[in-house]
Amino acid sequence: MTRSYRSQVLYVNLSDESSKVESLPEDIFFYLLGGKGLGIYLLAHQPPKIDPFSRENQLIFVTGPLTGTIAPTAGRFGVVTKSPATNGFLDSYCGGFLGPEIKRAGYDAIIFQGKAESPVVVNINNDNIEFLKGDTWISKSPAQCDKMGKEKFGPRARVASIGIAGEKLGNFAGIFSDQRCAGRGGAGAVMGSKNLKAMIIQGTLPVEIYNPEQFRKDAWIARRYIRSSELTVRALPEEGTCNIVDIANISGILPTRNFQTSVFNEADKINGSAWRTNYWKNQIACFGCPIGCSKISYSKRTPTIIIDGPDYETVFALGSNVGNANQDIIIEANALCDEYGIDTISTGNVIGFVMELVQRGLATSSDFDGIPIKWGEPNTILELIKKIGTQEGCGELLAQGVAQITKKFPRSEIFAMHVKGLEIPGYEPRATKGMGLNYAISDRGACHLHSYCVSVEIFSNKGGMDPFLTDDRKVRLVYDCQAESNLIDSMILCMFAFFGMRMKEAFQMLSSATGLFKDEDDEMVLQSIADRIVTMTRLFNLREGWTLEDDTLPPRFLNEPLPSGPAMGQTLGKAELESMKKEYFKLMGWDEKGAPLKKTIEKLKINQF
Amino acid sequence: MTRSYRSQVLYVNLSDESSKVESLPEDIFFYLLGGKGLGIYLLAHQPPKIDPFSRENQLIFVTGPLTGTIAPTAGRFGVVTKSPATNGFLDSYCGGFLGPEIKRAGYDAIIFQGKAESPVVVNINNDNIEFLKGDTWISKSPAQCDKMGKEKFGPRARVASIGIAGEKLGNFAGIFSDQRCAGRGGAGAVMGSKNLKAMIIQGTLPVEIYNPEQFRKDAWIARRYIRSSELTVRALPEEGTCNIVDIANISGILPTRNFQTSVFNEADKINGSAWRTNYWKNQIACFGCPIGCSKISYSKRTPTIIIDGPDYETVFALGSNVGNANQDIIIEANALCDEYGIDTISTGNVIGFVMELVQRGLATSSDFDGIPIKWGEPNTILELIKKIGTQEGCGELLAQGVAQITKKFPRSEIFAMHVKGLEIPGYEPRATKGMGLNYAISDRGACHLHSYCVSVEIFSNKGGMDPFLTDDRKVRLVYDCQAESNLIDSMILCMFAFFGMRMKEAFQMLSSATGLFKDEDDEMVLQSIADRIVTMTRLFNLREGWTLEDDTLPPRFLNEPLPSGPAMGQTLGKAELESMKKEYFKLMGWDEKGAPLKKTIEKLKINQF
Repeated sequence: MTRSYRSQVLYVNLSDESSKVESLPEDIFFYLLGGKGLGIYLLAHQPPKIDPFSRENQLIFVTGPLTGTIAPTAGRFGVVTKSPATNGFLDSYCGGFLGPEIKRAGYDAIIFQGKAESPVVVNINNDNIEFLKGDTWISKSPAQCDKMGKEKFGPRARVASIGIAGEKLGNFAGIFSDQRCAGRGGAGAVMGSKNLKAMIIQGTLPVEIYNPEQFRKDAWIARRYIRSSELTVRALPEEGTCNIVDIANISGILPTRNFQTSVFNEADKINGSAWRTNYWKNQIACFGCPIGCSKISYSKRTPTIIIDGPDYETVFALGSNVGNANQDIIIEANALCDEYGIDTISTGNVIGFVMELVQRGLATSSDFDGIPIKWGEPNTILELIKKIGTQEGCGELLAQGVAQITKKFPRSEIFAMHVKGLEIPGYEPRATKGMGLNYAISDRGACHLHSYCVSVEIFSNKGGMDPFLTDDRKVRLVYDCQAESNLIDSMILCMFAFFGMRMKEAFQMLSSATGLFKDEDDEMVLQSIADRIVTMTRLFNLREGWTLEDDTLPPRFLNEPLPSGPAMGQTLGKAELESMKKEYFKLMGWDEKGAPLKKTIEKLKINQF
Repeated sequence: MTRSYRSQVLYVNLSDESSKVESLPEDIFFYLLGGKGLGIYLLAHQPPKIDPFSRENQLIFVTGPLTGTIAPTAGRFGVVTKSPATNGFLDSYCGGFLGPEIKRAGYDAIIFQGKAESPVVVNINNDNIEFLKGDTWISKSPAQCDKMGKEKFGPRARVASIGIAGEKLGNFAGIFSDQRCAGRGGAGAVMGSKNLKAMIIQGTLPVEIYNPEQFRKDAWIARRYIRSSELTVRALPEEGTCNIVDIANISGILPTRNFQTSVFNEADKINGSAWRTNYWKNQIACFGCPIGCSKISYSKRTPTIIIDGPDYETVFALGSNVGNANQDIIIEANALCDEYGIDTISTGNVIGFVMELVQRGLATSSDFDGIPIKWGEPNTILELIKKIGTQEGCGELLAQGVAQITKKFPRSEIFAMHVKGLEIPGYEPRATKGMGLNYAISDRGACHLHSYCVSVEIFSNKGGMDPFLTDDRKVRLVYDCQAESNLIDSMILCMFAFFGMRMKEAFQMLSSATGLFKDEDDEMVLQSIADRIVTMTRLFNLREGWTLEDDTLPPRFLNEPLPSGPAMGQTLGKAELESMKKEYFKLMGWDEKGAPLKKTIEKLKINQF
């Protein structure tokens, strides 16, 4: 019986330019689905405590059992590796059109191992693996790589590539494809460390389905749910993710000036309607997506600068967080990040941190090659990004992220906004405390996507939960949202689809696509898959050296009351956080230090594979 | 210190054409807010077990402490009386512009007592109360009354009136104002029983505010929340309440053919987009409303027929519930209901019931004056409405509602869709079981607004709750939503505002408008106000003769599994319902038979007033 997964992994060894295909146990897809689940399974097989930039670290491209099917938003792929930013597990996902090509080429995952002597581009066409010299590709931007790949291998070829920042091992360099990006945690640096400039892929094999007739029905139902929710029919199509700028600001969760406050006086200059009215020229959608949250904008100041974006995270990071309400500058800053191939969230955090260093007199412009450092100043923002991207001058340090920069500036730790080396996304945790717990315990550092509970704490139109609550109900919410996120990233679908469809519809699609699941007990089966993936990732991170003490938040969140807005006076104090962690560990079946209990490992059958 | 309530009630005695003003204890507003809370306080003072059409029954127009202020959606008023449909408490609310005039005339409430010898129209202008002969007004539609009132008393005069159905004491006649309607439970019949054809009102007094500066800020914040939610910025403005037709149908909660099923094959012909695209010519908003859910439509078949609507309830009742997907016919049916002055929900239920009577062979067309009775047939729908409105022929019986009609047709009880005499709104409780509990325990019969938990069970974009759940969590949800609804109806605001703002913003406005509340413990204060109002209403209904056995659902919901759709096979069985009721009574502090415990009455200080 054909099924929507292939049980096949392509191993590409860059050291000797060899490749091989290996089969996966079928169990994997029942127990871990694919995507993140498959990724942690594969990553756990590499030796412990290796340097993320060593030959032993694997760069794993993963798909899920729904990738490339007609399931809505089934065009994404994931990248899994050990992160140079956190020294722990990293998964990062990217939309566009490349995911389905991996599946059509015959694979559930592609693993790059070893390291090429000199820059290389790997072209994959079904079982034909070609190693090309990368010399002419070096220093090219991801957009240029996309174009070169298509020119050389035809319009259906899809390209995943890195920019200069990845080549130079910047800690927050991403992997780009179709102008989109697996941005967080430095997967692009790992790719750069392997001298792999780009992967090009296309496939011609069909994506099989277990029960095609039922699956068509199930996918249609999921799509109808998406077509019936305000967020997915109107808000995201019309205003992209920037539809939340207003409500974030009203609710006091919009990080401003390196998280010094969470209300930005000029939010209405960068809200959804400001973008829709003044800048957005076009809407684009990823493979199989009925939503289309992506917008095309260009700078009015410099009309040749055109980007896919900006999204909410970029608007916060390169807008409010650096005191900037100039839309042209947000677009130009975003364009520079895309050109060099760096994550906008971490970039905006680094710039905000530099600005606060100077504000507090801990550094001066001379520490940054003479660039004038001032909140909201266009040149500060744009010039610092150039430094970070190219690692010239002060950029060598800045490109390593906030955690590393603190080492040069004593007493700066108290406003260094990162968890375990990953910078903070655009949700102030003192005003949405579920997100605080989430940042503290997420398996890739300060990640908003590990448990997107802010959607219930702040953005829910009904049935929300008080954002200041920190009791067991809130922990349960974080736990439930964590399950949802981990399942979505393992299927792999887009989180936004789940503002319309529910897990129930996803389960039906999984069931008819794979033939692995029965109708009954869907919730229990899915919950245990989520628990399994999160626990396996926890075990990996503990093995790599993470400790209970790392599960914390920047001192600012713990100690500094918010100075204004509806959450004025709020912190997320140490005691509150510890009590939430304790309850969370209990729900997970982990001990008081956050180590999974033996009986939990047994119950989740983690030792079986 | 001036405050946003006046502590003044105008009593109008229709028997002797006298009037007087009485002061209310200030406590009332602290303990009961206004609106429904004020209504139950005033109604409880009338003698027990009276006939709703007797002189002793009071017809009470109520406002709330926010009515007429700049609080968003503060233009509504309520009508409270003893219902001829249920023989119990009735509250029904109406948008438009009349509510603020009651306040400006100097009153929190206006109570009509006694009965006029012949039809009368009462004109109220501050403390000037005028009794006009109603002869020339008789048989006029509410829209004509609106016009006549404005012609006679100027454009600022607001009119509340009844149509023929109210004059003839039809059990589901409503009270109309500005083309809107306090529709449910027969308040129009009570008005008719008093020979009161219309109340006309305008006032010139200011609506005072305790702390104007703070209140302006608070109202602005509430308004900003409303301007930041998808439902209130886009869905309701663009598609009105019909924005939920699609999701209701997809979720299997759209009552179809007298609740025989909950999936309507032609739902896409009557969904939000079908109305927006084909019919809606204009959008209107009530006093102080930033949403504007109201639409103006006209029939393409008969372009002279123009209505304010249709809303979701009408589209379900005169559409799917009678097997009709013809938009022209829905509009024309709605127009007839408005002309005669009857509730569209009960009307659609009666027609659906008649159609099923004939479908099952329990009646024939000869029982209905020879009108051919057929699902979806335009003439069936329109002719039956004319009968109901005018009470000619079979209309005399039909106008009394489903509960009364069953008495003529043996064995029809099993598909008679009402609770305690009030027909069922557009949410199938077998597929949204919180609504099932709500219908069973609501204090005015099958009311969706008593606890609009479907907004969490079905319409929530995040943080929803499984609609099939019937455990303690679900009961708690019903209880929480009941608190919200009772507070909203006591302030009085519009439920739709709360798809954007939260109770927190409302409390702030209450606080600065009245000066009665402190910042701390808002949740606890509000919860106890809600419990107090619900418990006082329960006590009233028990006094009037309601029993535990009345807290149930039509046999169809209890015994007949849904035949199709995502809720196929579901019932809301007796055992499930009883267990939910038990838990609900516990939360309310009532005994096992649903009678409020002495300690609850004491705790809520109900004996104090």
